[in-house]
Amino acid sequence: MSEPVFWFANSDDGGSQRVRRVREGLDKVSGVITRLSELFVRTLREDPVDAEVPSHRWLVRAGYIRRAAPGIYTWLPLGYRVLRKVEEIVRQEMDAIGAQEVHFPALLPKEPYEATGRWTEYGDGVFRLRDRKDAEYLLGPTHEEMFTLLVKDLYSSYKDLPLSLYQIQTKYRDEARPRAGLLRGREFVMKDSYSFDIDDEGLQKSYDAHRDAYIRIFDRLGFEYVIVHAMSGAMGGSASEEFLAVAENGEDTFVRSPAGYAANVEAVKVASSAPIAYDDAPAAHVEDTPDTPTIETLVALANGRFPRADRPWHAGDTLKNVVLMVRELDGSRHPLVVGLPGDREVDPKRLAAQLEPAEAEPFGDADFAAYPQLVKGYIGPAALGEESASGIRYLVDPRVVPGTRWVTGANESGRHVFDLVCGRDFTPDGVLDVAGIREGDPAPDGSGPLRLARGIEMGHIFQLGRKYADALGLQVLDQNGKLVTVTMGSYGIGVSRAVAAVAEGTCDAKGLSWPRELAPFDVQLLATGRDETVTAAAADLAVQLDEAGVSVLLDDRKASPGVKFADAEIMGMPTIVVVGRGLADGVIEVRDRRTDERREVPVADALGEIVAAVHGRPILD
Amino acid sequence: MSEPVFWFANSDDGGSQRVRRVREGLDKVSGVITRLSELFVRTLREDPVDAEVPSHRWLVRAGYIRRAAPGIYTWLPLGYRVLRKVEEIVRQEMDAIGAQEVHFPALLPKEPYEATGRWTEYGDGVFRLRDRKDAEYLLGPTHEEMFTLLVKDLYSSYKDLPLSLYQIQTKYRDEARPRAGLLRGREFVMKDSYSFDIDDEGLQKSYDAHRDAYIRIFDRLGFEYVIVHAMSGAMGGSASEEFLAVAENGEDTFVRSPAGYAANVEAVKVASSAPIAYDDAPAAHVEDTPDTPTIETLVALANGRFPRADRPWHAGDTLKNVVLMVRELDGSRHPLVVGLPGDREVDPKRLAAQLEPAEAEPFGDADFAAYPQLVKGYIGPAALGEESASGIRYLVDPRVVPGTRWVTGANESGRHVFDLVCGRDFTPDGVLDVAGIREGDPAPDGSGPLRLARGIEMGHIFQLGRKYADALGLQVLDQNGKLVTVTMGSYGIGVSRAVAAVAEGTCDAKGLSWPRELAPFDVQLLATGRDETVTAAAADLAVQLDEAGVSVLLDDRKASPGVKFADAEIMGMPTIVVVGRGLADGVIEVRDRRTDERREVPVADALGEIVAAVHGRPILD
Repeated sequence: MSEPVFWFANSDDGGSQRVRRVREGLDKVSGVITRLSELFVRTLREDPVDAEVPSHRWLVRAGYIRRAAPGIYTWLPLGYRVLRKVEEIVRQEMDAIGAQEVHFPALLPKEPYEATGRWTEYGDGVFRLRDRKDAEYLLGPTHEEMFTLLVKDLYSSYKDLPLSLYQIQTKYRDEARPRAGLLRGREFVMKDSYSFDIDDEGLQKSYDAHRDAYIRIFDRLGFEYVIVHAMSGAMGGSASEEFLAVAENGEDTFVRSPAGYAANVEAVKVASSAPIAYDDAPAAHVEDTPDTPTIETLVALANGRFPRADRPWHAGDTLKNVVLMVRELDGSRHPLVVGLPGDREVDPKRLAAQLEPAEAEPFGDADFAAYPQLVKGYIGPAALGEESASGIRYLVDPRVVPGTRWVTGANESGRHVFDLVCGRDFTPDGVLDVAGIREGDPAPDGSGPLRLARGIEMGHIFQLGRKYADALGLQVLDQNGKLVTVTMGSYGIGVSRAVAAVAEGTCDAKGLSWPRELAPFDVQLLATGRDETVTAAAADLAVQLDEAGVSVLLDDRKASPGVKFADAEIMGMPTIVVVGRGLADGVIEVRDRRTDERREVPVADALGEIVAAVHGRPILD
Repeated sequence: MSEPVFWFANSDDGGSQRVRRVREGLDKVSGVITRLSELFVRTLREDPVDAEVPSHRWLVRAGYIRRAAPGIYTWLPLGYRVLRKVEEIVRQEMDAIGAQEVHFPALLPKEPYEATGRWTEYGDGVFRLRDRKDAEYLLGPTHEEMFTLLVKDLYSSYKDLPLSLYQIQTKYRDEARPRAGLLRGREFVMKDSYSFDIDDEGLQKSYDAHRDAYIRIFDRLGFEYVIVHAMSGAMGGSASEEFLAVAENGEDTFVRSPAGYAANVEAVKVASSAPIAYDDAPAAHVEDTPDTPTIETLVALANGRFPRADRPWHAGDTLKNVVLMVRELDGSRHPLVVGLPGDREVDPKRLAAQLEPAEAEPFGDADFAAYPQLVKGYIGPAALGEESASGIRYLVDPRVVPGTRWVTGANESGRHVFDLVCGRDFTPDGVLDVAGIREGDPAPDGSGPLRLARGIEMGHIFQLGRKYADALGLQVLDQNGKLVTVTMGSYGIGVSRAVAAVAEGTCDAKGLSWPRELAPFDVQLLATGRDETVTAAAADLAVQLDEAGVSVLLDDRKASPGVKFADAEIMGMPTIVVVGRGLADGVIEVRDRRTDERREVPVADALGEIVAAVHGRPILD
């Protein structure tokens, strides 16, 4: 171990000791080589039982995170380094648009959330608690109220605006189904920012600045993403876009057209079809259709017993009436029937987005008993509508327009009505656009057929407008000395989620594979072999790389080469350097983790080659 | 504004625009000059009503923090910069001793805390909550359990040790009386670290390494501190020291001797006095002492009615018996009488430390009614002791040793007993060292008379030993393949508290006055005057300083010089530069915030002078 190693230029240290450099003046300590023999990490050979998605599996197996409770994770040293790198990218880009960093508490008093109604709206979705004096608090799921009040507290004039504030902070949501590791946790890190402007034009500028910053941030994070139109959800507000990481395992479905339209499915607004003339339509007629409680059985029976001359019946000829219970915020419940073409399903997310803050509940047997007008499996428009005897609200898909003809329930068991014409035979109470979007549906802006894909919501920007400022009285004096309400934007990025999203987008069958800007270390340097010259040479190279500004994780463990290779592949540093057998022949091996390209490099060139690789030039030129 | 300014060397920019430098490669954005006209801050002319201490007053008035709820604060941009600087110092020094950074959740499951008994022990002191599935959680006040379980989860061999882990994290305590702003908050940032060793020798080394790191950290933070022996409190464990910031407003009282002994008052162990021969002592005799329910009245009466030959009676001749109720963790209560010389008082903190985890409660009228043996104001040893008829536990001060003679209660109203000799006439159940420490008391180690002072607890290091490892089963295999229990150390620093402690230790009558390493900006640069040349010159100098690595807060507001000076003094950047009237004569003013030294510097020399001042050379040489 004490034998000096001469292969690498400028070696002035055997490298077998930790090296500490203290920069004068700044007194900053750096340059301690991290050794895998000392790093607090254990890779696991088995998948964790609760891991549903690759990022979760690999982040746990590679020793980046550990589960502490459902949806609540502990960051181990490797994981925390990645998290802090994401934070730093976000911070830099937020600072660059002049946003100012503040930091709110996570433990928040109830009152501001009561003032905006969200104390109630959040329902079970937030963690609530009481202090020793029985005062009520929540663990902040988002901070609109607090930011609004803070600006109200300090600012009073249009001259103070525009203003953008942000924080990178731990947030809490009591998710019903925490899943996929960091992707949907209950304690997580978010960057949230808020803009404050005197008028709509200012808000648009602030929104655009944030949008540009988000593009820079997501470009730097290094995964594929798409910007989609979005519903703003419980937040209220108008213009709203989401940044989605494209991922097969994503919870969000989005659509895009060849010409560039992109939207979250919740946000797709299906245009109402044009009305059709129905002068020639035959009169509606009720037919016996025994044992046809489903669209499929109905279509089969219709084709058998009432064949069409032009073509077979298909599901799209039927009008399916889906009945559900709507629970309002105040707890009251009322039935709602949604009529839509029989070849479409109600999309639960689109439904939830349309009903919010009310919620849809299943219509159970007890509910059917309470509403005898609704004949399960045979519900039809004649029994529906606020003007009908039942008084049950009846909303239809935008494709159900005047003149369209339908086969639908006759409100008697075993009977359906044919040639029922919308606008002639029934008039719905309105439109509800909640049918699922299908591959090939036309884009709302006419830009072509939609394709469906899945993604992970990584960022969300939206123009809140004056909702919170109104509720909390955030006004400033304008140029004429008149009080005006401030208009706000709200902008979020899932910081801890980004760690998982990047892992999800970059991992492969062997493990994690970080993009350079997020990797915990630039290089994993393996000393393979028991020879002390190997160990010393590896340590020496590590020190030299560190001094050249390349961060190194040195695998100095007494373990087999196989174990070291496998761990390096699981842990996912972008460059793997192997100091081993080749050393006797004066070469070391440099591998690219992602491409698995490898080549032997003369020892004398190693430092330069690795530095070049880390700084972006391909290893193999 | 567009007129170029030539006074400062190397100016290539009028400076009136924000300047952004994007370093190639790193893509790091920096160099945006912060302008006070845009900074989210308002100084206040009035003290906040709830501010009890100068640091709290000035941090609020200078716009560093805002109160969000009792004991819960929001960090404004200036304050958050200071907090992050403290964090960075702590991080660097922890990294330098090889401690590894992890990050635990704040929302923690109940089970680990139940296993160690702390779920109960903490009482009202922690925030507790239930999730939507009714599972119980707490907001972590400290993380011993979680660290112990994490290491148990990953490690299994002596080869894995020693190990030190740390986190910088938000913690929660439901303080009964949150006060003094950040000094005793309910949501606060702490660095907590834990060491894991195979044996006591290893623990001592880990402890010593932390102690050294703490010394470096507190030296860098730049306030006066003292390291004192401490009780380890609810944490259990043995060796224990506190780092206290010396501060008149501190909550902690500590003592020090001329020869270097230093201890928290809770930790001072008063040595038992040497026994005294009592062969010559007269027999005890009861005397009528009407209307003497207090020590003062008793001494006065004794001097009048039973004068001593040698000297007057004084309070120290009496044995005061203080009765209190002890409430155990399980809620049960029992009386306890503490006997101590009449010139001493029971120190509530020393009492609490000795009784912990049980608590002392006042002995009320109902309690006296339940124990008729205790005659209020006239309680004496004859009625006390576990062997006595009352069975009431009787513990005495270490100064009450065999042979000492006392005047004390005779357990009858209006009567006292004289010449009652300890060891002859009564035998206490044991010793309880809870009398207040007084200026001039001898140091326990014989190093001279003690002086009392006050401080703020900034750090606490202690050897936990095997308490948590035992409770949670953290064992590893030793060299012989035998399972042994790991021994732990626990080390905390109040990170957000440090911001307040530094402010407390450095502020003056005019406002905050930061040490250089913590100041949000190196320089507050005031442009005083309406002349555009002044504004442009100031902006230009700001850019040049920024490029020279000096961070600048540029006061470019349309405000009077008086307002700018006052704000600069409140905000407390170490160097104040004034570009104003003198500019016409080719000079600017450079002031030191702390000393108020000021001098005029030729414009051409300004950059160099200020850079020198910031880098530690005195302005005035």
